[in-house]
Amino acid sequence: MIEVALFGAGRIGSIHAGNIARQPGVRLKYVVDVDAGAAARLAQQHGAQTTSAESVFGDAGVRAVAIGSSTDTHADLIQRSAKAGKAIFCEKPVDLDLARARTCAAAVRSAGVTCVIGFQRRYDPTFAAVKARIARGDIGQPEMLIVTSRDPGAPPVDYIKRSGGIFKDMLIHDFDVFRWIMDEEAATVYATGSCLTDAAIEAAGDADATAVTIRTRSGRLAQINTIRRAAYGYDQRFEVLGSKGMLQAGNHRPTEAVLWSADAVAADKPEYFFLERYRAAYAAEMAHFFDVVTGKSAARTSIDDGVEALALAEAATTSWREKRIIEL
Amino acid sequence: MIEVALFGAGRIGSIHAGNIARQPGVRLKYVVDVDAGAAARLAQQHGAQTTSAESVFGDAGVRAVAIGSSTDTHADLIQRSAKAGKAIFCEKPVDLDLARARTCAAAVRSAGVTCVIGFQRRYDPTFAAVKARIARGDIGQPEMLIVTSRDPGAPPVDYIKRSGGIFKDMLIHDFDVFRWIMDEEAATVYATGSCLTDAAIEAAGDADATAVTIRTRSGRLAQINTIRRAAYGYDQRFEVLGSKGMLQAGNHRPTEAVLWSADAVAADKPEYFFLERYRAAYAAEMAHFFDVVTGKSAARTSIDDGVEALALAEAATTSWREKRIIEL
Amino acid sequence: MIEVALFGAGRIGSIHAGNIARQPGVRLKYVVDVDAGAAARLAQQHGAQTTSAESVFGDAGVRAVAIGSSTDTHADLIQRSAKAGKAIFCEKPVDLDLARARTCAAAVRSAGVTCVIGFQRRYDPTFAAVKARIARGDIGQPEMLIVTSRDPGAPPVDYIKRSGGIFKDMLIHDFDVFRWIMDEEAATVYATGSCLTDAAIEAAGDADATAVTIRTRSGRLAQINTIRRAAYGYDQRFEVLGSKGMLQAGNHRPTEAVLWSADAVAADKPEYFFLERYRAAYAAEMAHFFDVVTGKSAARTSIDDGVEALALAEAATTSWREKRIIEL
Amino acid sequence: MIEVALFGAGRIGSIHAGNIARQPGVRLKYVVDVDAGAAARLAQQHGAQTTSAESVFGDAGVRAVAIGSSTDTHADLIQRSAKAGKAIFCEKPVDLDLARARTCAAAVRSAGVTCVIGFQRRYDPTFAAVKARIARGDIGQPEMLIVTSRDPGAPPVDYIKRSGGIFKDMLIHDFDVFRWIMDEEAATVYATGSCLTDAAIEAAGDADATAVTIRTRSGRLAQINTIRRAAYGYDQRFEVLGSKGMLQAGNHRPTEAVLWSADAVAADKPEYFFLERYRAAYAAEMAHFFDVVTGKSAARTSIDDGVEALALAEAATTSWREKRIIEL
Repeated sequence: MIEVALFGAGRIGSIHAGNIARQPGVRLKYVVDVDAGAAARLAQQHGAQTTSAESVFGDAGVRAVAIGSSTDTHADLIQRSAKAGKAIFCEKPVDLDLARARTCAAAVRSAGVTCVIGFQRRYDPTFAAVKARIARGDIGQPEMLIVTSRDPGAPPVDYIKRSGGIFKDMLIHDFDVFRWIMDEEAATVYATGSCLTDAAIEAAGDADATAVTIRTRSGRLAQINTIRRAAYGYDQRFEVLGSKGMLQAGNHRPTEAVLWSADAVAADKPEYFFLERYRAAYAAEMAHFFDVVTGKSAARTSIDDGVEALALAEAATTSWREKRIIEL
Repeated sequence: MIEVALFGAGRIGSIHAGNIARQPGVRLKYVVDVDAGAAARLAQQHGAQTTSAESVFGDAGVRAVAIGSSTDTHADLIQRSAKAGKAIFCEKPVDLDLARARTCAAAVRSAGVTCVIGFQRRYDPTFAAVKARIARGDIGQPEMLIVTSRDPGAPPVDYIKRSGGIFKDMLIHDFDVFRWIMDEEAATVYATGSCLTDAAIEAAGDADATAVTIRTRSGRLAQINTIRRAAYGYDQRFEVLGSKGMLQAGNHRPTEAVLWSADAVAADKPEYFFLERYRAAYAAEMAHFFDVVTGKSAARTSIDDGVEALALAEAATTSWREKRIIEL
Repeated sequence: MIEVALFGAGRIGSIHAGNIARQPGVRLKYVVDVDAGAAARLAQQHGAQTTSAESVFGDAGVRAVAIGSSTDTHADLIQRSAKAGKAIFCEKPVDLDLARARTCAAAVRSAGVTCVIGFQRRYDPTFAAVKARIARGDIGQPEMLIVTSRDPGAPPVDYIKRSGGIFKDMLIHDFDVFRWIMDEEAATVYATGSCLTDAAIEAAGDADATAVTIRTRSGRLAQINTIRRAAYGYDQRFEVLGSKGMLQAGNHRPTEAVLWSADAVAADKPEYFFLERYRAAYAAEMAHFFDVVTGKSAARTSIDDGVEALALAEAATTSWREKRIIEL
Repeated sequence: MIEVALFGAGRIGSIHAGNIARQPGVRLKYVVDVDAGAAARLAQQHGAQTTSAESVFGDAGVRAVAIGSSTDTHADLIQRSAKAGKAIFCEKPVDLDLARARTCAAAVRSAGVTCVIGFQRRYDPTFAAVKARIARGDIGQPEMLIVTSRDPGAPPVDYIKRSGGIFKDMLIHDFDVFRWIMDEEAATVYATGSCLTDAAIEAAGDADATAVTIRTRSGRLAQINTIRRAAYGYDQRFEVLGSKGMLQAGNHRPTEAVLWSADAVAADKPEYFFLERYRAAYAAEMAHFFDVVTGKSAARTSIDDGVEALALAEAATTSWREKRIIEL
């Protein structure tokens, strides 16, 4: 029985708790959160206990930790977990500071512990199917990638102020998709952005809409478009053009009901937001984490992936701020 | 130059006039209609003259006729055209009376003239592609056929009274699709119908909604559903299940614009009605007619097809009226 | 804590066991199966015990039973459960014999126990959304229903021999969909069928392809087409035409990946079979059962629904066998 | 009767000849081409004569000219036509040289003649429907535009050498779409490009794949991706995100046949290339031209539109060549 401690009892922590509890041979032992009430509620729901971080790292029985607490706690928890020899699952981003993220990666490497970063999109059935089909040659050599990534609505401006900016907070997933799908590193990044949906976001020094272009070392091209608010909901699509064809990853719909009326032929909007859209992905990434812990699989989203996506986010932020093309 | 006379200057006559005029090596010489004004307008538009049926049959220069006048004139015009040795294009149905339709077929046969019946659906790009793909084996042996055939709105009750009833007027196309796609004759027909959209249709002794089941001699199955009024417009679909797969013939849309709104993801309704939906089919069937006239092709929709579809319509009418299964 | 006994440790029993175990406030106490090994494996997986039917009915602590054993055991288990005052969830069909099914319904009624029949399609997100939108008036008054219900492959002929025939075994779900969607009882049933996929099914006295037409008392029309084998998989669609529009319930796909190649634009085939397609429905129906048990909801699929669907299946079987229209 | 002279008897000239001939009240009088045989064949097909440019400009009866000859002839023909007081329809681009294009615009302006540039996409039913729906407010204020523009295969390298480069030859249409849809001028342009499909294109100093980002003066964003070769054919899509929703303009398919096989659910690839995809658009733009000639409409694609799209193409070319962001 693998005993696990979970840091973070919020929205995403809840998802992880459920998925941990569902793994065969795994037991959620502890829930840790500064909000004692939230920790207690989540712990009780899964037959776990609340405790402190110190106790977790002092409990030799805890073999793995899942970090779903706020971003500013990630680096510290990763380093302490690595030191304590625990297998680590950590939500993105590793940290908002690239140097500090690299320090975490070094700590994980020197401790020789497992570390899986929660880029859940790679575990999504549709996204994973596209990747697998590229890998088996369905479209030949990938040449162009177009990523559309839009949220149904912006988070509170208070959150945005602490988020590291749209490129680190929101596009970090898209940068990971770029690296994963194109399987090649970026040579140049150009990013532009605007504030189109809420002036408060601009006042906070951030953008809410961006257009990013990445050129890989071999000259292949990627374009990413994002916005914090799409009236029709959560839009998560990408398409990869290759020498032999194109693969599209489309949105998921809640139902397959279609209404033919006097006005139009109307299907469902996409799944509401990330908790709905990536429900299967969250379950699959946690199952993968325990496959890594038990030696059945190598980590598909390593801490190095976390660092590299952050490096792209930093380059994009600079490109946007300084209005110039960044060479990497 | 092939000289042609057109009977009928109404809505469908206009379509045929345009398509005749567009054929290379063909000249629309005469337009004949009891409505002298309509005939004159259509004739002028295409540089033709108006005349009487007698003059048409007396003019040895006229090599082909296109009959798009009212149904009750078809049989007489077919027989006179055959006698005069003219190639015949005739709108469906041959006649509302099966015996009389058979007499027409015999007249055509004994005169040895070309006769193409206007089952335009066989010439529609989508329907024809499905047929061609069945023929080349894409779905193996056809086993089941589902036909959906719905009009945007019912014609005036006065028209319905003279129409021969829904099975002869509307489903005759669907019966032709059945024979063409399944490539086998019917063994039994069961039809039921109701009046769901307009009580005046029921008062006229007709149905406005029908459900027909046909079993072929080898036991393959077809279901046809029709209604005189669908709120979303003209619905013209069929699907053929075969031993290796299924082919669907879908509706055509005016545009490929799609709106993603806070309510739904909405595409266009189907093309409005038969003149829009089958525009390409009407052009292709007329081109085919002149291919037959010039010996480049055999008739793809012969008068025998017209007779057989009518026989099915008659069987369905009886099944509906007498509430019994008809063996053919 | 509601204690539950499960009859049947096979494929569908496994599904129900998982869903029972997942209900808050519910405990799977017993698994009963003639196959002791299967019962033991499933019991162990969910921390339950194996036992005999006698023990279940003798254990006053067991408040609810779920019957997922073979069809020939349903009636007896329903009657004994009713007598013992236990809430009943039972897979379709109630029984293959209509009279016996009615006896079961009477037993349930006189015992005053809860009884939910496993017509899981009513709980499917897509099907349920269509029903809800009809109920709120999206398409006006329903007029025509077209149901397509096709399996990826036939079960073994041995199963077919004991199945009660295709109408009771396979179409019973479609008859339930008809009653649920049209919300009106049948006046006449016409069914025809053939053996198109496997001669052994014909030798067993059954059909593997059917075409059914139902006319409701008020003259509304339904057509159902089914086959035991579709090369492209499990096809579960229906469409309802109403006075103001049409609602379609489409297939579900495993992923939303689409390949644009030199040949075609290709999307996924439907979910493989009922366990995949109706995974969410099985979970929702079990949650509903415990809502009924705890008085939060009335049964949405009662034993009377089970009886009425069976009556339609019996009428269809007779129509097919005797080649006649059945009045109900 | 408006008499018209057509310059250019090649592929696009043929299309225009047919569309001119089809306009009521219009007569194709002359066809002019350096290839005398091609001119003669096209002239004969439409009952026109061949002649020289001089004769056209000397014939006071010629009220309008259509210029579909090679790009290097456009500017001269526009200027001579303007001087001769003839209404001008001219294929894109006005010229490869921006200064010379501006001179043409000045000539048109000072002569006060009609001039319609052949940006046929604006006349496409789907593209025009999207524009109309934006105009009526369906998606609120446009915020982001994503354009996908891919050819089925590259033209011969000899053509590419004379083409002005991919931005002026191919993307000029996309730049026009940007200006038309966003209804605002560009503030900055960033373009990158690669040679991914054919090394000979690189050797000719051109790119065959590009990624362009345009920021409008008010900060709205557009991304364009293009490639000279997509294995699945001609891909012409765009989507516009607005404050209230998104409108997509999708590809057109030759038929609506769909195959459900053991492998996938497969629809048609897009229409083969521009002659097929924009057949309706070419007809509509020519009808529009004569509406402008007869004063029924103002020019929807003026020579100024031609100049502005060229200015964007030039900026993009510079951005790509010099690897920098261009301010306009």
